[in-house]
Amino acid sequence: MSLGEFDLIARYFTRPTQRAVLGVGDDCALLQPTPGMHLAVSSDMLVEGRHFLSTVAPQRLGHKALAVNLSDLAACGATPLAFTLALALPRPDETFLAGFARGLLALADEHHIELVGGDTTAGPLNLCITVFGEVPAGQALRRDGACAGDGLWVSHALGGGIGDARLALEVFRGRISLPGAAFERVRCAMEQPQPRVALGLALRGVASAAIDLSDGLAGDLGHVLRRSKVGATVDLDALPCSDVLAAQPEALRRECTASGGDDYELLFCAADDMAVRAAAQAAGVGVTRIGRIEAEPGLRWVDRQGRLLAFSPNGFDHFAD
Amino acid sequence: MSLGEFDLIARYFTRPTQRAVLGVGDDCALLQPTPGMHLAVSSDMLVEGRHFLSTVAPQRLGHKALAVNLSDLAACGATPLAFTLALALPRPDETFLAGFARGLLALADEHHIELVGGDTTAGPLNLCITVFGEVPAGQALRRDGACAGDGLWVSHALGGGIGDARLALEVFRGRISLPGAAFERVRCAMEQPQPRVALGLALRGVASAAIDLSDGLAGDLGHVLRRSKVGATVDLDALPCSDVLAAQPEALRRECTASGGDDYELLFCAADDMAVRAAAQAAGVGVTRIGRIEAEPGLRWVDRQGRLLAFSPNGFDHFAD
Repeated sequence: MSLGEFDLIARYFTRPTQRAVLGVGDDCALLQPTPGMHLAVSSDMLVEGRHFLSTVAPQRLGHKALAVNLSDLAACGATPLAFTLALALPRPDETFLAGFARGLLALADEHHIELVGGDTTAGPLNLCITVFGEVPAGQALRRDGACAGDGLWVSHALGGGIGDARLALEVFRGRISLPGAAFERVRCAMEQPQPRVALGLALRGVASAAIDLSDGLAGDLGHVLRRSKVGATVDLDALPCSDVLAAQPEALRRECTASGGDDYELLFCAADDMAVRAAAQAAGVGVTRIGRIEAEPGLRWVDRQGRLLAFSPNGFDHFAD
Repeated sequence: MSLGEFDLIARYFTRPTQRAVLGVGDDCALLQPTPGMHLAVSSDMLVEGRHFLSTVAPQRLGHKALAVNLSDLAACGATPLAFTLALALPRPDETFLAGFARGLLALADEHHIELVGGDTTAGPLNLCITVFGEVPAGQALRRDGACAGDGLWVSHALGGGIGDARLALEVFRGRISLPGAAFERVRCAMEQPQPRVALGLALRGVASAAIDLSDGLAGDLGHVLRRSKVGATVDLDALPCSDVLAAQPEALRRECTASGGDDYELLFCAADDMAVRAAAQAAGVGVTRIGRIEAEPGLRWVDRQGRLLAFSPNGFDHFAD
């Protein structure tokens, strides 16, 4: 079936604009920023075999492509406004496109944002989304504000944790195996992460620094520590995890939670524990205190007895592994 | 040489921010829009073998990747502000990156804009840029404003024209050959297009509709006609072309100018010829009147004697050829 670029855009991605002044179909989209707000912008590119597996359902991929971008807005404390999508596809596969658009636009609707423009081309599968949000001037959560004495926190689903996405990847890699229901749960964590937008908004004025967990806790925390010129001690056994991951051997559990990657939870620092718990409750998200920020540079891992551990997980580097 | 993602960003793409509140290195970049302005946004994705050839010098590719995006802002009449870059590379090739960054940032400097964020990943070569600009509310040039009676115009270098990029492509394809100096001129048109930002700004309040020529005049004009619900007659022999292209056989010249693609000139409509010439002079760019907008739908081609031609060039479709 022959489907040209313009038909393709029209069929799957064009909907009436709600908030944008001008949406898909002109040279540029036009947005009307709210006076006094800063515009928050982030771009993430997803490549097959690196950010998703060829086995992923198109609908889940559509969800994930937008979710990882919304997660950046969440980490900034920004309210999502709109996004653009640039898409390279080997061929205009309608089954893929219909599912992809469904997952993408369902998550967009959930966050009341719209697709305002983009590009489609033939080429090796590649998904590049740029999201726009807004945040009152001076209130954005940044990576450079952590202070000695702050608590260190991570978000997670109520009753869940971090590391499930990595555990699912290890199943796909054939390193471990899981029963069907357990596999489906961790696979869902990998393929359909939930961006913590509501929590990011609730943490404005509460968190001193924040980042979203995309490359693994150890690596992402390292960015915050370097930018904030501080250090931290983290209780490796306090890292929250799901029942499925809790049932795994200690070494695997620690690896998945501390350096797993693809979590898209918020890692943040705050001076006031009560305020953090109130924000989490307002957002309907779980949060766990996993350590503290210290003046001494570097990252120290301890176990539940407070003993220093010789544990140095490597943050996931897109060129290193 | 091992070069991780974060080193790579720091080495080639991080410079002190000038205008952005927060630039490369956090979850989001923060921009401060000017009150009363609309934000213009556009994304273009470039794929090897489709938007550029593997033979292109990295510096020229860096220029072109940003130029094609700036061209969308030009077609909208927007002042460029900033851009993000998402880059998939098979490996972190420092020679490529150094050249690419040089070409990219030189054009950015020329337009006083800065790289505020983005993403890098391993993967088949893919360049995705999103540009941001601003335009006073209600003054953006759009595709849907052409009116019967308007003149139809195309921009070009002084003494130049459109179609050179397509002619260069035909040399690369082995269909024709050109002497060295002539080839270098048309190759330069293909590899280093000049976005007509100054002209776009000068056409605010003058042009009734505008689009940038990326997929070929015939195809791009079709978008304007459909969106504006009008038709047009175009004088095929009035299409401006360089000396190199003028020396080619008539059929090839017509094909290159009328459906060439990759021109990144502005195609626009305007009621007032004098105002167009004044805008072009202010911008230091050539403009040629190539036809007129008519109430009758459809696109009619005539020769210099006004005779109707049976000429139906196809707009370039990223999935069709």
